[in-house]
Amino acid sequence: MAMRILSPLAFAAALAAVSPAFAADDLAAGAAAVRDRALTDSTAWDVAESLTSEVGARMVGSPAMERARDWGVAKLKELGFENIKVEAFTTPAWSRGAESAEVVGPWPHKLSILGLGGSSSTPAGGITAPIVVFKTYQAMLDQPPGALKGKIAVVTQSMGRTQDGSSYGAVGVQRRAGAPEAAKRGAVGYLIRSISTDDTRLPHTGGGAPGGIPAAALSTPDAELLERLAARGKPVMVKLDMQSAANPGAAAWNISGEIRGKEKPDEVIVIGGHLDSWDPGTGAIDDAAGIAITTAAAKLAAQPGKPKRTIRVVMWGSEEQGGSSGAYLAAHRDEVGKIVVAGESDGGAGRIWSVSLPKAGADHAAMVAFKSALPKLKVAVSRAAPAEGGADISGIISAGAPFVDFNQDMNRYFDLHHSADDTLDKIDPAELAQNVAVWAAFLYTVANSDVDFRTAAPKP
Amino acid sequence: MAMRILSPLAFAAALAAVSPAFAADDLAAGAAAVRDRALTDSTAWDVAESLTSEVGARMVGSPAMERARDWGVAKLKELGFENIKVEAFTTPAWSRGAESAEVVGPWPHKLSILGLGGSSSTPAGGITAPIVVFKTYQAMLDQPPGALKGKIAVVTQSMGRTQDGSSYGAVGVQRRAGAPEAAKRGAVGYLIRSISTDDTRLPHTGGGAPGGIPAAALSTPDAELLERLAARGKPVMVKLDMQSAANPGAAAWNISGEIRGKEKPDEVIVIGGHLDSWDPGTGAIDDAAGIAITTAAAKLAAQPGKPKRTIRVVMWGSEEQGGSSGAYLAAHRDEVGKIVVAGESDGGAGRIWSVSLPKAGADHAAMVAFKSALPKLKVAVSRAAPAEGGADISGIISAGAPFVDFNQDMNRYFDLHHSADDTLDKIDPAELAQNVAVWAAFLYTVANSDVDFRTAAPKP
Repeated sequence: MAMRILSPLAFAAALAAVSPAFAADDLAAGAAAVRDRALTDSTAWDVAESLTSEVGARMVGSPAMERARDWGVAKLKELGFENIKVEAFTTPAWSRGAESAEVVGPWPHKLSILGLGGSSSTPAGGITAPIVVFKTYQAMLDQPPGALKGKIAVVTQSMGRTQDGSSYGAVGVQRRAGAPEAAKRGAVGYLIRSISTDDTRLPHTGGGAPGGIPAAALSTPDAELLERLAARGKPVMVKLDMQSAANPGAAAWNISGEIRGKEKPDEVIVIGGHLDSWDPGTGAIDDAAGIAITTAAAKLAAQPGKPKRTIRVVMWGSEEQGGSSGAYLAAHRDEVGKIVVAGESDGGAGRIWSVSLPKAGADHAAMVAFKSALPKLKVAVSRAAPAEGGADISGIISAGAPFVDFNQDMNRYFDLHHSADDTLDKIDPAELAQNVAVWAAFLYTVANSDVDFRTAAPKP
Repeated sequence: MAMRILSPLAFAAALAAVSPAFAADDLAAGAAAVRDRALTDSTAWDVAESLTSEVGARMVGSPAMERARDWGVAKLKELGFENIKVEAFTTPAWSRGAESAEVVGPWPHKLSILGLGGSSSTPAGGITAPIVVFKTYQAMLDQPPGALKGKIAVVTQSMGRTQDGSSYGAVGVQRRAGAPEAAKRGAVGYLIRSISTDDTRLPHTGGGAPGGIPAAALSTPDAELLERLAARGKPVMVKLDMQSAANPGAAAWNISGEIRGKEKPDEVIVIGGHLDSWDPGTGAIDDAAGIAITTAAAKLAAQPGKPKRTIRVVMWGSEEQGGSSGAYLAAHRDEVGKIVVAGESDGGAGRIWSVSLPKAGADHAAMVAFKSALPKLKVAVSRAAPAEGGADISGIISAGAPFVDFNQDMNRYFDLHHSADDTLDKIDPAELAQNVAVWAAFLYTVANSDVDFRTAAPKP
């Protein structure tokens, strides 16, 4: 059998013909290697441990938020990020003062409450009024104007446990929108069963539309106690004493660091989590986890060699009370056309169970390589569900940036969310590492390819 | 084949020969019927619901305890008990004032604490001192006198989850005995990881030996935070501000009602739970459940007809801070020889998984009948474990009263015990009913037989 010797020119031509396949194989091998390093890497855990231990709770407008800003800059520097920026903005911020609630009749009970962000204060010394319990939010909405005059409206609708967290959107309306609806009907106070799936005495706070009346969340057992007391048919009197303050222009910052691309540094992947938190816990699952996952994933995706495109990690500065998304868009509007893809990790630290890719680009060789890394991580690529984005990337999405969703298992998330129970011990290190592995494999394949997720030219 | 006709005399003799067997069969059938009624009866749930909703938390020495007393008398009357008694005594009682704790350096954190019963107050304005963390109680005991001078000692030993609750006795010593040990070594404050199996931010209180220093329980996540901060090697400063009051002679009451026996009314079965509770929750599993189980079981055991012996249900009045056991013995010392058997339900509302009968009497036909009711309830009769009694019957036990244990599944008990999470929703109605069924079958067979559990004559 004769040997065929290729000329140098023919050899180069042959190589060129197969190079896309070779490149895809290289990307797949690289993604698998990045994934496997992520599964044993402790960076994300260390970041979450550091933020929750050395800063703790960090409400926008509080001194802790300034410490969080300094922590973020120092952490990005320590991890080797470049081009670190602190982009200042101002935003309205609510802050909690002393709060208490109790049943004063027919039998006294102390109640566990947390005021909702945006709540009004009571007069000094509090208010005492009879309650009216509604087992659904709709039942309260069905009341005519004036029907709740002088009463404290109590809505006790419960929330189901869901993997995709969709019950939050559905039931959360009683927290987000209820206070002005109660006020419109004459109520002098508004209490809800916490938007939560737990059964502890810890209430869950969160933002609510201001209604000019005091508004608070009851713990699940306290909401059920009020239902039982009301069912006895005698007037149930509740005293609320709630103080808070509102700052119309609190200082806030979006903080970012980059791994600069070595070939196309102005093509940017924008990912991150939010640095601010509510006040009762230490903001571990919401959202030290997101900060930790995206920071660690970016670092891992840049090993062993720098990527072709730039990966930017953003620590958004005011997700809970709003403001960071708009501020980020305002500061980066001119750059939106250069955003390759945006992603946000703000669903806790539960394992990722599915990925929703932008349709454009989903079948590119780089995404084929990415998807080849997923079976080991037990992640499905969703065919049906489109990506929805997240609060902090909603600004740049609205301006045309493509975006991806990594859907985390939220079955346990609302046991902890916005409560004193949001602490580091609730993060499972193995689940956290699985998140990092998915993100790192994605970043690696996108940053080292020319995949284009844009469906159209960016909006002007 | 010739027929044999028995003479009337021979017939009566034959009947007499088999009558013990007939009696045992009747008892077994009666026990099974009582058991089955108990499984669908709502009395216990209704009692627990009423006590937790209409009284709530009830510390000895508090106004709520007076309401609990009135509730107990009214409830026994409503359920048809006779010979209702309120036996007054006095006992030392501790009461909680305002409490707060925070890490003030190197990074500020609010801490979730509950003072231990018996704790001293801090001076007004609190104390601030560096902490020393011990991961085991023994490690603190190993310190020489003076080693903790000016420090706040922190013991973070954790507690394992056990079906029989035995880890409470082992690990609980750091709560019960630690404050004076810390004080002896110079400590100015004493903090423990809650004696608990949960991971919520809710601390668990309980009685502790007074050490002349402030002593409190940290929630599990707070104890772990202090461990992490201390591991960084910088001094960790904690501020404690704790106020409390001690009443050396608080009014208390043991309340009882009877179903009087129709044949031997002076032979008495003494059962019950304790009416007092700690203050953070509503005393549902500790011990509205015990009150509910024993009250409902007594009522069910007396249907359809009154029993031969008397069944007495006692609502002991000061278990948590001590006093009711001694007071009960003092008031009933002359009667101890007439106590057929004593039993206490104070392990929550988890299902009964085993029964420890007194050895004497365990093979009596009445107990054979009782045991025949148990397989359906998935209850084992323990061959190895002797009954241990309980806090409130320890007085009469020490004077010679025989006693029985119904061992409840305590796997979840210490998630809730002595915390704000001890609320009605933690009681599973089906598990509560299983408890009632076991107790009711036992009461029925003992109260309708002549089983004698005494091993010797009562002590004089």
